[in-house]
Amino acid sequence: MAKEVETAEQGGGEFSAKDYHDPPPAPLIDAEELFKWSFYRALIAEFIATLLFLYVSVLTVIGYKVQTDTLKNTVDADCGGVGILGIAWAFGGMIFILVYCTAGISGGHINPAVTFGLFLGRKVSLIRAIMYMVAQCLGAICGCGLVKAFQKTYYNTYGGGANELQPGYNKGTGLGAEIIGTFVLVYTVFSATDPKRSARDSHVPVLAPLPIGFAVFMVHLATIPITGTGINPARSFGAAVIYNREKAWDDQWIFWVGPFIGAAIAAFYHQYILRAAAIKALGSFRSNA
Amino acid sequence: MAKEVETAEQGGGEFSAKDYHDPPPAPLIDAEELFKWSFYRALIAEFIATLLFLYVSVLTVIGYKVQTDTLKNTVDADCGGVGILGIAWAFGGMIFILVYCTAGISGGHINPAVTFGLFLGRKVSLIRAIMYMVAQCLGAICGCGLVKAFQKTYYNTYGGGANELQPGYNKGTGLGAEIIGTFVLVYTVFSATDPKRSARDSHVPVLAPLPIGFAVFMVHLATIPITGTGINPARSFGAAVIYNREKAWDDQWIFWVGPFIGAAIAAFYHQYILRAAAIKALGSFRSNA
Amino acid sequence: MAKEVETAEQGGGEFSAKDYHDPPPAPLIDAEELFKWSFYRALIAEFIATLLFLYVSVLTVIGYKVQTDTLKNTVDADCGGVGILGIAWAFGGMIFILVYCTAGISGGHINPAVTFGLFLGRKVSLIRAIMYMVAQCLGAICGCGLVKAFQKTYYNTYGGGANELQPGYNKGTGLGAEIIGTFVLVYTVFSATDPKRSARDSHVPVLAPLPIGFAVFMVHLATIPITGTGINPARSFGAAVIYNREKAWDDQWIFWVGPFIGAAIAAFYHQYILRAAAIKALGSFRSNA
Amino acid sequence: MAKEVETAEQGGGEFSAKDYHDPPPAPLIDAEELFKWSFYRALIAEFIATLLFLYVSVLTVIGYKVQTDTLKNTVDADCGGVGILGIAWAFGGMIFILVYCTAGISGGHINPAVTFGLFLGRKVSLIRAIMYMVAQCLGAICGCGLVKAFQKTYYNTYGGGANELQPGYNKGTGLGAEIIGTFVLVYTVFSATDPKRSARDSHVPVLAPLPIGFAVFMVHLATIPITGTGINPARSFGAAVIYNREKAWDDQWIFWVGPFIGAAIAAFYHQYILRAAAIKALGSFRSNA
Repeated sequence: MAKEVETAEQGGGEFSAKDYHDPPPAPLIDAEELFKWSFYRALIAEFIATLLFLYVSVLTVIGYKVQTDTLKNTVDADCGGVGILGIAWAFGGMIFILVYCTAGISGGHINPAVTFGLFLGRKVSLIRAIMYMVAQCLGAICGCGLVKAFQKTYYNTYGGGANELQPGYNKGTGLGAEIIGTFVLVYTVFSATDPKRSARDSHVPVLAPLPIGFAVFMVHLATIPITGTGINPARSFGAAVIYNREKAWDDQWIFWVGPFIGAAIAAFYHQYILRAAAIKALGSFRSNA
Repeated sequence: MAKEVETAEQGGGEFSAKDYHDPPPAPLIDAEELFKWSFYRALIAEFIATLLFLYVSVLTVIGYKVQTDTLKNTVDADCGGVGILGIAWAFGGMIFILVYCTAGISGGHINPAVTFGLFLGRKVSLIRAIMYMVAQCLGAICGCGLVKAFQKTYYNTYGGGANELQPGYNKGTGLGAEIIGTFVLVYTVFSATDPKRSARDSHVPVLAPLPIGFAVFMVHLATIPITGTGINPARSFGAAVIYNREKAWDDQWIFWVGPFIGAAIAAFYHQYILRAAAIKALGSFRSNA
Repeated sequence: MAKEVETAEQGGGEFSAKDYHDPPPAPLIDAEELFKWSFYRALIAEFIATLLFLYVSVLTVIGYKVQTDTLKNTVDADCGGVGILGIAWAFGGMIFILVYCTAGISGGHINPAVTFGLFLGRKVSLIRAIMYMVAQCLGAICGCGLVKAFQKTYYNTYGGGANELQPGYNKGTGLGAEIIGTFVLVYTVFSATDPKRSARDSHVPVLAPLPIGFAVFMVHLATIPITGTGINPARSFGAAVIYNREKAWDDQWIFWVGPFIGAAIAAFYHQYILRAAAIKALGSFRSNA
Repeated sequence: MAKEVETAEQGGGEFSAKDYHDPPPAPLIDAEELFKWSFYRALIAEFIATLLFLYVSVLTVIGYKVQTDTLKNTVDADCGGVGILGIAWAFGGMIFILVYCTAGISGGHINPAVTFGLFLGRKVSLIRAIMYMVAQCLGAICGCGLVKAFQKTYYNTYGGGANELQPGYNKGTGLGAEIIGTFVLVYTVFSATDPKRSARDSHVPVLAPLPIGFAVFMVHLATIPITGTGINPARSFGAAVIYNREKAWDDQWIFWVGPFIGAAIAAFYHQYILRAAAIKALGSFRSNA
């Protein structure tokens, strides 16, 4: 009898009361994972992914300015650079493919704010969260370093892809833009990886990396004119280390405090508002039961 | 014999003659849902989603004009703003990720016209429909308010992202553009969420939020030059409340009447033309049986 | 015994020799379908889909030129129109959502060349093919007519979205561009709807409408400078009827002969080269067995 | 007992401890495949796919320059060409649809560097790898030849779509850009086709062709200003053969050595770092078990 019930639960057809299970909250300190290769492999994957993220996106930013400026290269004659739209695609598209590639290895964070949000949601242990952030920051520094090595002449001239508050905006606006932008991203991450919804809305996990990439794309479209768009402390930190100008360091706190607050609000919103109680609303698209 | 025929009809495995079920039509007034947390959670989700939608998209509109105008910011030198294409992406892309994020919570309407269409199709109760619209309008007002707070200097100068009939077009054209645009959107929503087709064409639900977002993207490409593209009364209302100029209010009715007519036609087309009778045509791509 | 074998075949796990079945070739004339509502419903769906396709895409073409020209509208100041990239998105994106919406109703052709290719591949009967083409052409005429009604002033000034051979290209080049462009599209359609591959590569049917839309997008990027890109006789015919200038009619044959030849080559390539014999190569990505 | 533990480990239904199997490494020389039609069919598919890839993408490059230059054609008046963003879409989008179309026939390489990487990962035999590369190079030559035939006047004037080191960059930078760019692409290919992850993360194979196309799109955004972006030796070789200028041949080695090194590093990274040992980390998104 019991066996039958269990089988029915798993088959994915009947939607019994237990068609999903929340993994238990991650422990704060999980000593065991330190002795697993998979832990170090995840750190390597986060390092490489953040390196590639910064390399491609900052190279696009710098290359675009070179095109707009010199009008010398053969591919482009006038105002045909990739534009802000192309830059936004570079950031969003890279996150799409890197989340896709590393989701099965490290969870595909590539962003200390995402790691922080998932830590608050008890999806990763404290020690893993800290080590991920270190790997991400190191990766970002190396990625920007590569761009500087490739574009010696232009890197510093064109702002080094560093996040700075643009003229005409005050610190409060910049902080607000970072908070809401990171909220959009981390909210999407939580929605995409919620085991509860995966069991019901089969499209949710299938598309997971794509909407996460789009969230990054959208936020860049909206806030590049305000802060250059951080929403990723590793990205801002790596660019600041390599660019190393005063303004970039002065504004640096915005790109850590903002994203962390935004991620915390998203974690709170998802855990306490959207998943509160055990009510299972499937939404009006399906039925009103 | 009869059994054999039934089996043979399906072609796709175990699908019996009842491989899907239409949920019963939603009651006009469902008192029960008022006592469920999931109802209020859905309202919160609609509010937040519409807020984020307006925040990101209107910020993109305003930011783009600032870039084109001032040529002062460091990211952009000449004609490299996101352009109308970037604006259209901002609206469409946000709908993609927000439908993705809220589909399992509230159904992911984020648009009174969509709610109205689904109400006509008896997918949501009257009381839910009204409360959703209120939440969406409030969210839109807050979203535009945030943009104004962030872009004090530019918000009113650059039109506040409000929908207005552009010079050179008469009211009839504007109304027509809104009707057909909303028809495209709501038709896509109905197609994406039809339980009958979900059972047969497995790709339909998997991709659901993506074509809905693309529908918004496409309609913006086509009708931004005519009305700035509403197809979402909450979006038009929120922008009008915050922008608060006479022209925006004078044209406001177009952005309520048009989308509601378009949604009604889409609901009618889907329910009476496409789903008429119980005939199960699978389309020529699969077989002609 | 026989039953067991059958079950194993269908389960989708074992990949036995019969994990898919080709539907029998469609009859040339299928009198029976004339008495089914689903046949007429499919015609209505093709008509509406082609109407919406032309309406949105041609409106984007015209609207873009207005923007570039007048510099009067409030959304755009300088060179910020949607550009050829936006026009290509409009065509490709509309095909994506319309194939998505109508795939389960009519097969989602929306293009006489696709219908012709599928007829050659014996996926649709002759009578269905002819009626689809008539519905598509009527839909295209109505869609362009709507654009003209909305954009009276600009429609004829800006070329009416009609396909014409551009200056500097001879007829042979135009015909070649149409042939290869249509080949790309119809080849993608055949790949996306091949029942043999569906059984093996589960991603193929899931994404079906997306690569079809992308194929249209790509071909537009490449051949707009040559012919304005037809690859869809209904689209070219509808625009010619409404625009009604001599040049559009003089070049009209290119946009029928080219796409039909391209579709025929794609049908031949798919049926005789790729599916020849019963060999089941899964490709090197999976195994070399 | 042991059995229970095994079952409990999976969480996701019936997945036993062997829910995937690595295909055995491909033999260096597989004489048997030479006698199979599927082998020659795969060569034809690679040839046609590479031909279409070069035809569409190089035509976009040339057509874009014509637009920017002549300002004569009717579709475009000023700075409205497809831009570098459109060119990047053309390359990435074509790879998306061609991988989608040929994945089930040949594995969908369309790129000697991908073939080389998969050969190093022992996914294809030596003889198949060599024959694929020959087919790809021939296809690329024919594709570029078609463009030259269609655009006689402009082809040589506008650089023929050939990859050359842009002024201001030294050989080391070009080589580095090609190595990292190809690493991004081949790393994505390995991630998308890993049978281990397919069994666990169901979204991975479903989306496979899309992130591969996006990887190509991203790398083009970043490195068009440096080398015009090769990351595909067949693409660079085909364009050089048809364009046939000294500079293109002088730089040709960069577009073979770079991609092959990048592919080798990606194969090494995937096989020795990410898949080392038999540890099954599902990543923090799922659980920390």
